[in-house]
This record gives sequence, C-alpha cells and structure tokens, in this order.
Amino acid sequence: MSGTDGCLVKCSLFPCASAENDTKDTSPTIVLDHGDPTMYESYWRKMGHKCDITFSGDDSLSYFANGKSLCWFLESKLEEQITRLHNVVGNAIVDDHYIVVGTGSSQLVQAALYALSPSDQLEPISVVSATPFYSAYPDVTDFVRSGLHKWGGDAKTFEKYGPYIELITSPNNPDGVIREPIVNGDQGKLIFDLAYYWPQYTAITLPANHDVMLFTISKCTGHAGSRIGWALVKDKEVARKMTKFMEISTIGVSKEAQLRAAKILEVVSNSCLDFTLKNFFEYSQSLMTDRWQRLRQVVTDNDLFVIQNYPPQYCLFTKDLCESHPAFAWLISKGGEEEDCEKLLKEHKIQTRSGRRFGSDSRNVRISMLSRDEDFNIFLKRLMVIQGSTNRT
Amino acid sequence: MSGTDGCLVKCSLFPCASAENDTKDTSPTIVLDHGDPTMYESYWRKMGHKCDITFSGDDSLSYFANGKSLCWFLESKLEEQITRLHNVVGNAIVDDHYIVVGTGSSQLVQAALYALSPSDQLEPISVVSATPFYSAYPDVTDFVRSGLHKWGGDAKTFEKYGPYIELITSPNNPDGVIREPIVNGDQGKLIFDLAYYWPQYTAITLPANHDVMLFTISKCTGHAGSRIGWALVKDKEVARKMTKFMEISTIGVSKEAQLRAAKILEVVSNSCLDFTLKNFFEYSQSLMTDRWQRLRQVVTDNDLFVIQNYPPQYCLFTKDLCESHPAFAWLISKGGEEEDCEKLLKEHKIQTRSGRRFGSDSRNVRISMLSRDEDFNIFLKRLMVIQGSTNRT
Repeated sequence: MSGTDGCLVKCSLFPCASAENDTKDTSPTIVLDHGDPTMYESYWRKMGHKCDITFSGDDSLSYFANGKSLCWFLESKLEEQITRLHNVVGNAIVDDHYIVVGTGSSQLVQAALYALSPSDQLEPISVVSATPFYSAYPDVTDFVRSGLHKWGGDAKTFEKYGPYIELITSPNNPDGVIREPIVNGDQGKLIFDLAYYWPQYTAITLPANHDVMLFTISKCTGHAGSRIGWALVKDKEVARKMTKFMEISTIGVSKEAQLRAAKILEVVSNSCLDFTLKNFFEYSQSLMTDRWQRLRQVVTDNDLFVIQNYPPQYCLFTKDLCESHPAFAWLISKGGEEEDCEKLLKEHKIQTRSGRRFGSDSRNVRISMLSRDEDFNIFLKRLMVIQGSTNRT
Repeated sequence: MSGTDGCLVKCSLFPCASAENDTKDTSPTIVLDHGDPTMYESYWRKMGHKCDITFSGDDSLSYFANGKSLCWFLESKLEEQITRLHNVVGNAIVDDHYIVVGTGSSQLVQAALYALSPSDQLEPISVVSATPFYSAYPDVTDFVRSGLHKWGGDAKTFEKYGPYIELITSPNNPDGVIREPIVNGDQGKLIFDLAYYWPQYTAITLPANHDVMLFTISKCTGHAGSRIGWALVKDKEVARKMTKFMEISTIGVSKEAQLRAAKILEVVSNSCLDFTLKNFFEYSQSLMTDRWQRLRQVVTDNDLFVIQNYPPQYCLFTKDLCESHPAFAWLISKGGEEEDCEKLLKEHKIQTRSGRRFGSDSRNVRISMLSRDEDFNIFLKRLMVIQGSTNRT
C-alpha cells in the first residue's frame, strides 16, 4: 500500500496537463508527487521478449483459479512465483503463511483492516501509524465511514490501553526508515506493509516473519499498472476473512494481471540465479545508488535542505554492506517552522507532496526517486536553481 | 454487478471439492449456484488467434493511462471499444456519458453508492431493490458497515418519503424480468445495473439512457476472470466521485485486463459487422435458445416446477421478434410454502441458490444457464430423475 499513491485522491489527476507554467519557462512541472515507478522501464526494455505473455480469447474466462489455495481466485502460477522470489531474496518467510492476492496492496490494507477489526463491538477499532505515515492510510481507513475501524492518527501518541490496529511500514514511506511497532499494547494487531523491503531499497537483514505482511509488485518490479499485491498471512481465519473481503469488493483479482505478474516475478528470480542474465536487483540498486549520490551532492552543495542519512547494514542478499536508497527522498527545509517546502519547490516547477499529508509539517516534502531519467535530471537541475536564486551566503 | 457472484461469500468456495456424494452415485455435484460464464469458451476457442494479445515486460508500468479521460486510469483503447460496441448493439447511449472503468461491476456498485450517498448527513442513506433482488446487493452495501449507506431491503415496501438509492437490475437477476424503478419518490437516486442487457439474453428494445448505468464484460462476452466492468455516468461530479472511489480502493484497474477487454470487445463488434466472422451475439443467442427450450421441455414434462415466461419483443439489434433467454432460470417449486427447493435439488446433486438469498422464499431457486455443455446436460438429466423419483401421478 505504501507502494501506491494516495496523492491521486487529493491532487490533480493529470498534473502534467494542469501544470502551472511561469512566465519565464513554458516547460511543464516535473511531477514527483506520486511514486510512479517508471524508472524500471529501462530494465524491462532490455529484457526484450523474455517476459512476453500472450492471452488467447478462450483463456481465463472463469471467476475461479485452478489452484487449491484458500484464496480461491489466486492463480497457482502466481502463488508459486511469489513463494520462489521470497525464497530467492530471503526477505520474508512464506512457508507457514497463506497467500492472499489483491488488486494492489491498497485493497489488501482494507482487507486486513476488515479481517482484524472485531465484528462484535459497537465502536470501531482505532487504526494508527507513527508519523510520518503513508499519506493514504487515513483515507483508506475512513473513506466509506466504516463502523468497523476508524483512523486514530499517530501511533506515538496513541493510548496503549484497549484494542487497536497498527500499520508498520518498513522501510517507511515517506522517510525510508526501518521501523518496529510503536504502541506495543496488549491488545494490538499489527499489519506490516513491506512494499519497499527489497534489495534495491534497503539491506535485507533477515527474512521478515510477521502475522500479516503486505507486498506489491508496483514497487518490487515497477509494474504499478498491473495492480497486483499480495499478503502473507499466518492465521487461517484472518486469511479467510481477507479473501472474503476481496470476494465482496471485486470478486477476486484480474487473472491477466496475476498471470503476467507471475511471469515477471519468474524472470526476476531467474535473473538472480542465472549469471547470463542481468540481475534485476543489482541493476535497480545501481540506478538508485547513482540517483541518491547525485541528489545528496546537490543537497550538500546548497544550504536549503537536509535529507535523511541511513546507516549501512549487512545485506544477506547481496552479501555486502549496503546503504539504503529509498524510493522517496524525505527532504527537510532548513527554514523556520513556517517554511512551506512544497510551495517553494512548486514555484520551481517541482511537484512534491507536503509533509502535512504524512502527519508531519510543511517543512518536509516527499519526492519520488522512481521517475524516468529525463524527469529526474530536470528535477536535480531545478533543485540547483533554487539554491542559486535563494543563496543565503 | 448482477453479472457477478455473491454466492462466493456465503457458500463453499470450491463446491466441486466439497461436493457431497450419495451412496448410489459418486459423481460430483453440478454447481449451478453462481453464474460462471464458461459457456462462452466454445465461441472464443473457435476464434483461434483473432483475440490474442501479448504483453512485453516494459508495457503498462505506470499507474496512469495515456488517455485524457476524467477517469485517469481508463485505457483509451478500452474507452473506444466500449463506445463502439454500445453503438453497434444499440443498447445504451454513450455519447453524453462519462465512462468509469471498475474491477468488475461489483466495485462500480460500491463506487456509485459512494458517489450518490450524501456526505453531509448523520444517518446513512437507504439502498433498496425490489425482490427478488441480486443476492450480493445487501453484502456489498453493508459489509464494512458504512456510515454513508445501509441496506434498506425490498423497494416495493420502502417508504417513498425521504432520500434513498434504488438499484434497478434489468433484465433482473435472478428472474430475467425487464424492470423499471419501483419507489418513484422525489428524492431517489437510481443505479441501473444492465449487466444482462445484451442480445443473447433479451430483446434490445431501445438504447438505455439513464444517469448511472453499469455493465460488465463477465456476462457480455464471458470473460469473468478479467474483472472488468464499466459505468456510463451522465453527471460529471458523480463520475469524478466514482473515479475517486476507485483511486482509494484499488488505485485504478489492471491495465492488462483493460487492454485485453478492449481486444475482446473489438472482436465482438467486428463479428457483428463482418459477415465472414461468426456473429458473437447470434452464436450465443442460439446456444441460450437451445438450452432454454430443453429446460422448458423437462419442466413441462414433470409436475414439480414452474419457470417464468417472457413475452417476445421486437429487438432492434436482430431486427426480429425475440424471446428472452436469461442467464439464470428462476425455478419455482409447485410444492407448498414449506418446500425447500434448494435442498430438494441438492439431494439430487444440483447446487443452486435459494430464493431466500434474493429476498424471496425457499420455494424458489436460481440456476445458472451459463455452465459448460457437459454440466448443463447432466443438470437436465438429474432434473428429469427428480421427476421420476417423486412422480405424483
């Protein structure tokens, strides 16, 4: 879910079309507000026909998949490739979990909330996450005014007595920090959103093994258009309720998207094991490393912003010390408390998302690091210009 | 939505696997409970490679579609083919409507409820539909205990003073009857579920032209596994709110499913215009006519059941008088009020859906007419056996 994009709800749907142009420069605003993972296109283009998948007219007519999974609409090929990839990467324990597929992990967050909310209570259960939290969580929790659950805000200030659900995004969206549960109350239920727990973003320090873990192909391989996410769920009854949510909500998940996702994940696993192929994670980690180095250089060169530092950690996948290279940069203005960093960057035709949307303040913005090269280059160029025009020295 | 399958929620997900066998016959129960449209496979198989569509690794990575539609995730190819097919068939006015795509029409029902529910009221708006109504409507309205809307039951007994939303399924699921609004209050908002308003099921008597109309590829062409539905919406603000629902719920709709649906709809339109191709609707109408004739013969030959008759109407598409051949048979037992028709048929290894699920009573059952040939043939054979074993003469 953190791999998805809540900005779409509140901001312009077609930012390029609605981009504001100043009088000096008629080029459009660079949109780094949402995390559209188009950066990965270059890898997939280089793979040629290795990932091609063809559907005939008589394929996949039924609502049902052919597998024997508890999740009756889960294609067995996808189940197999999800299991294989987690085993290859070592980022999650799959074996004693049920797999539930969703239309992106957004839907799985809702399914998990549905499954974990008590159905015998008059009052909705509180859903919390530590600030800065993924900006879509409040909307996803409250948009239909559910009587099952309600948004409870910052986990750091939540009163731990009583039942609650805590969303733990790790690495965190927006700031890339590795997270643990915050509330630690007796009656808490935990949802781990692990959309970014892949080697291109962070060191794989151990296979995650929680009760409910969410992943999405959007941020793993860049195929956001497919809308495929999956949950690894320990408890059978929770998995069953999540499946039921998906039944009522959308009667399952597109078979074409599932089968294509299976193909893509298969190629990613192959690329990690077959030395004649370009390792997907090495390739994408290298791109991210380059982008982060260049961004840090620009930020260092000016006197306006700070960005988070991440301690290097030993990665079990790359078998090396790795720095984190998150999918988003969490930029903090050095200005005073009244600084509006989003506004400042927008004046320079860089569209970002204000820290206010993440339960933080307007000195922060979240910036996508996953755009196409040309957009990323223009972004850095414009960031340098800000430095020049507002030089405080 | 009526093209989908609420049974999945409450009954066994893998009915074949859990089928009960009696001591005489070890063959599995025939599942005609849900409307899985596998009947159409034979047509698509005959079309060979005409519907093939191939996706490469670098296709459709973005959340966004390339079109300029208000519905920012709608693929322009799908928009084009939806418009074309409605124009070819003449079953709906598209031109002055916005198109919103959904993950099946289930999701669009929820999106329409979200968009039409007042957001400034303390009490949820009542959602009603005349009995027998599609069995999934109550669940879809109430499953997350929304504070925006609540299930209000039978439209026929609904008090017309005050605001409400009425779901009008036409032809109706389960009974195939052509429907009009029932409540006709001053403050009603109407959602027309037209999943079955296609020539194989009923005469196209005029192009529908309502404020909110829902369609699904599941029951139009049989591609239920794709999970593609669409809404035709007159009011821009309603279309915008439905799009927003889809953003929060699933951040759009799978691009693979949309593009494949576009291809399938293109071939269907072509088949209606190109005389060298087998017309899809003629083919499927012919199959349905045959099945209905055989079912009526069995029902006439025994003294246990009644099925609905439908008056022939002039069809603007076929340019001929057409009888209706609904996707479901609504079978009514001639037994007394205490008759449990679902139980009776289950004893003969035919799994159907009880009338109770549709707000009706246990003398009725809904039976899918869209199964594969072999299952339909076994169904008729077993229905004949019931006649034999319970002969009242």
